[in-house]
Amino acid sequence: MNKYLELKQRVFDANQRLHNAGLAPLTWGNASEFDKELGVIAIKPSGVAYETMKVDDIVIVDLNGNIVEGDLRPSSDLPTHLYLYKHFPNIGGVVHTHSSAATSFAQAGTSINAYGTTHADTFYGDVPCTRPLTQEEIESEYELNTGKVIVETFANIDYEAIPAVVVKNHGPFTWGKNAEKAVENSIILEEVSKMAINTIIINRNVERVDQYLLDKHYKRKHGKKAYYGQKK
Amino acid sequence: MNKYLELKQRVFDANQRLHNAGLAPLTWGNASEFDKELGVIAIKPSGVAYETMKVDDIVIVDLNGNIVEGDLRPSSDLPTHLYLYKHFPNIGGVVHTHSSAATSFAQAGTSINAYGTTHADTFYGDVPCTRPLTQEEIESEYELNTGKVIVETFANIDYEAIPAVVVKNHGPFTWGKNAEKAVENSIILEEVSKMAINTIIINRNVERVDQYLLDKHYKRKHGKKAYYGQKK
Amino acid sequence: MNKYLELKQRVFDANQRLHNAGLAPLTWGNASEFDKELGVIAIKPSGVAYETMKVDDIVIVDLNGNIVEGDLRPSSDLPTHLYLYKHFPNIGGVVHTHSSAATSFAQAGTSINAYGTTHADTFYGDVPCTRPLTQEEIESEYELNTGKVIVETFANIDYEAIPAVVVKNHGPFTWGKNAEKAVENSIILEEVSKMAINTIIINRNVERVDQYLLDKHYKRKHGKKAYYGQKK
Amino acid sequence: MNKYLELKQRVFDANQRLHNAGLAPLTWGNASEFDKELGVIAIKPSGVAYETMKVDDIVIVDLNGNIVEGDLRPSSDLPTHLYLYKHFPNIGGVVHTHSSAATSFAQAGTSINAYGTTHADTFYGDVPCTRPLTQEEIESEYELNTGKVIVETFANIDYEAIPAVVVKNHGPFTWGKNAEKAVENSIILEEVSKMAINTIIINRNVERVDQYLLDKHYKRKHGKKAYYGQKK
Repeated sequence: MNKYLELKQRVFDANQRLHNAGLAPLTWGNASEFDKELGVIAIKPSGVAYETMKVDDIVIVDLNGNIVEGDLRPSSDLPTHLYLYKHFPNIGGVVHTHSSAATSFAQAGTSINAYGTTHADTFYGDVPCTRPLTQEEIESEYELNTGKVIVETFANIDYEAIPAVVVKNHGPFTWGKNAEKAVENSIILEEVSKMAINTIIINRNVERVDQYLLDKHYKRKHGKKAYYGQKK
Repeated sequence: MNKYLELKQRVFDANQRLHNAGLAPLTWGNASEFDKELGVIAIKPSGVAYETMKVDDIVIVDLNGNIVEGDLRPSSDLPTHLYLYKHFPNIGGVVHTHSSAATSFAQAGTSINAYGTTHADTFYGDVPCTRPLTQEEIESEYELNTGKVIVETFANIDYEAIPAVVVKNHGPFTWGKNAEKAVENSIILEEVSKMAINTIIINRNVERVDQYLLDKHYKRKHGKKAYYGQKK
Repeated sequence: MNKYLELKQRVFDANQRLHNAGLAPLTWGNASEFDKELGVIAIKPSGVAYETMKVDDIVIVDLNGNIVEGDLRPSSDLPTHLYLYKHFPNIGGVVHTHSSAATSFAQAGTSINAYGTTHADTFYGDVPCTRPLTQEEIESEYELNTGKVIVETFANIDYEAIPAVVVKNHGPFTWGKNAEKAVENSIILEEVSKMAINTIIINRNVERVDQYLLDKHYKRKHGKKAYYGQKK
Repeated sequence: MNKYLELKQRVFDANQRLHNAGLAPLTWGNASEFDKELGVIAIKPSGVAYETMKVDDIVIVDLNGNIVEGDLRPSSDLPTHLYLYKHFPNIGGVVHTHSSAATSFAQAGTSINAYGTTHADTFYGDVPCTRPLTQEEIESEYELNTGKVIVETFANIDYEAIPAVVVKNHGPFTWGKNAEKAVENSIILEEVSKMAINTIIINRNVERVDQYLLDKHYKRKHGKKAYYGQKK
């Protein structure tokens, strides 16, 4: 049991941060982390209130979704998380929320466009909106198919450069190297979504940021020539 | 007196949660619960501030609105609550608020449409807006007629599947199996109302969610095949 | 000095409540109370931060604006307050804020229309917007003329039935029987202003509430036949 | 080391206030102060979280950006700050944020127009939006060129009378006599930006405030004839 304690603590903290940031009211939202050394995923239990959740409520599953440790059912969105871990090999954390502004874009069925450097600092282009799932995809293996439509959406998009998506009529998923980073990306996605809504209100015909500004801001923070932050 | 203590505590807690969630500024809003075993309803007193309200200020009335216990006047909306308890037999809690976004739909005179799964998880279709009350209905037995127009609105809608309404030019009422659940539905209604407003801003011609997605999400949480949350 | 202590405490509390409600960021906003027995007005000092303000910083002036007690300058809006006390004889409290939504109506130059019962419970009709002040009125005795244009706006409106106004390009003033009540009216005005903005977003062609619903809700809370709240 | 302690404490406090006011989520935003007697600038370190930042993390640099004291890298926006200190000789504080409403104007590419007295009390006219930087300006010495485009924007505007700008597609910079004042101007800019958005929603054809009202409010607070606040 001790073996998974640090992982469970990290995932517990990530979920609490999600809730404290106001992105997951009631029991909504879930964060998971894939520990590649241990070969297991830790995820929030389904429908448990953040206020009463304990570290030991975090569920440990294997890559096929079998419970390895834990007395509770894992989040019903687990199959989506697992599919993302399998197909986005460089990620170690996944987060799903119904955060207010980002979910509004999912409902409106449009991408969250790159209108400024706040967006470009984290997302190297528009955050895409998936196509709607078909009736068949919804009625059978819905959560798995949600993962599939996300991966399909990234067929020609670099999932590491744009670590977020909004699923049509549903809401955002974000990812990152671990659960903490995926939560941070959810917080940033909500901030840029709020700004995008206000930008549209001010100027209905607003255009996207120029490619070279996008390049500059993204590369200021990511890759070999990054110079934002402290040396590691 | 002891007999009603637990009921009063539950209704006190539900009202405080309503206030703490920001849905009931000043003395606005009220939550009640119908205890079918005891045959009485507990409700917030009229015009009392949440900050100074005590458990014993909660008023106990019978189904005809006669005071059974309590020194204060019950909420002036009591006749609406009573009418709902009589005509929606499977509910045990009713909540009324003037929460900002949901009330805006009441003022605009339009339903809160099902644009996404956040909505569908709780409300199995559009949350309807009532017709306006006539002058006669307003001038005589106003609060009773508010109950009547809600029940009329649900003539062809399942009140258990859509546990909320906005009363034209007034504001939302929600219900559930008890006061706590009715408060939770008020919180969710406000969240989906905020999202619906932003959805409209982003895409004025947005369409409702497909019926099969509505089915999927509602049934994931409700009924025999529900698989969200923990086993009971 | 003791003579004014209770009055100063009440005005201090009213100003702090204004700030804590988020209606007066930084040093903005001011609340005053006219004590008719003592024949003096207590008002917030000019440009003092709420966080460091002490009860003894509240300034006592007479109806002509002469300082009776206090080491600090009174709010620069004092002449507006005094003019309102002289011409609205039944009021005992005045509040001015730059609260975000109500000020947006002042800037847009339109009244805050009665779209629902939240509005009607406190304001018996549209909250009017004044005409713009002329260059001459602005350049000489500006704050006095602000009072004059408010009183002019209420030439055919009952100031007791609609205890609020937005001054064109400036912001809201509210009043009431004392400072506490005037602050409460500011809080309610901001709530109904936020709702009015969202109502307009949802339905650009929204119509005002019917007169009989306005009558019903206003009279439920005010006048001889009021039945909201507890017996006095 | 003691020599810079008070300066570092002031800049630390200014940065924390920025974060606590909600203008700088995560590690975003930075405030600096130029101490003309000491001939040095104190600025937030790059990419450090506000929650864990210590007073000694504040970096001391000279006017050429050389580190005088401190173990961490200064904010990557330092060259913008330095350029502003060199070309706006009467300022002693600079702040950069990605505050939500002001950044939305930067993204929409429009000035924040003077619609009311809340704006006029601090900004003596529209807060301008810069032209976009060219590809060349972005790819080489980006942060320096950001400073240059701001100074260019103020070729015919008094930087002391309008202590704020939004940089196209980026976000706001504000300044003042010290870091504290620059932070205050950021808070005010965000407030007036929120109001401007709501003003536009209410009245798409809103006009700017009259010049004489702008004069009145600005001069009530600034210059020899100011009468707002307490005597110094």
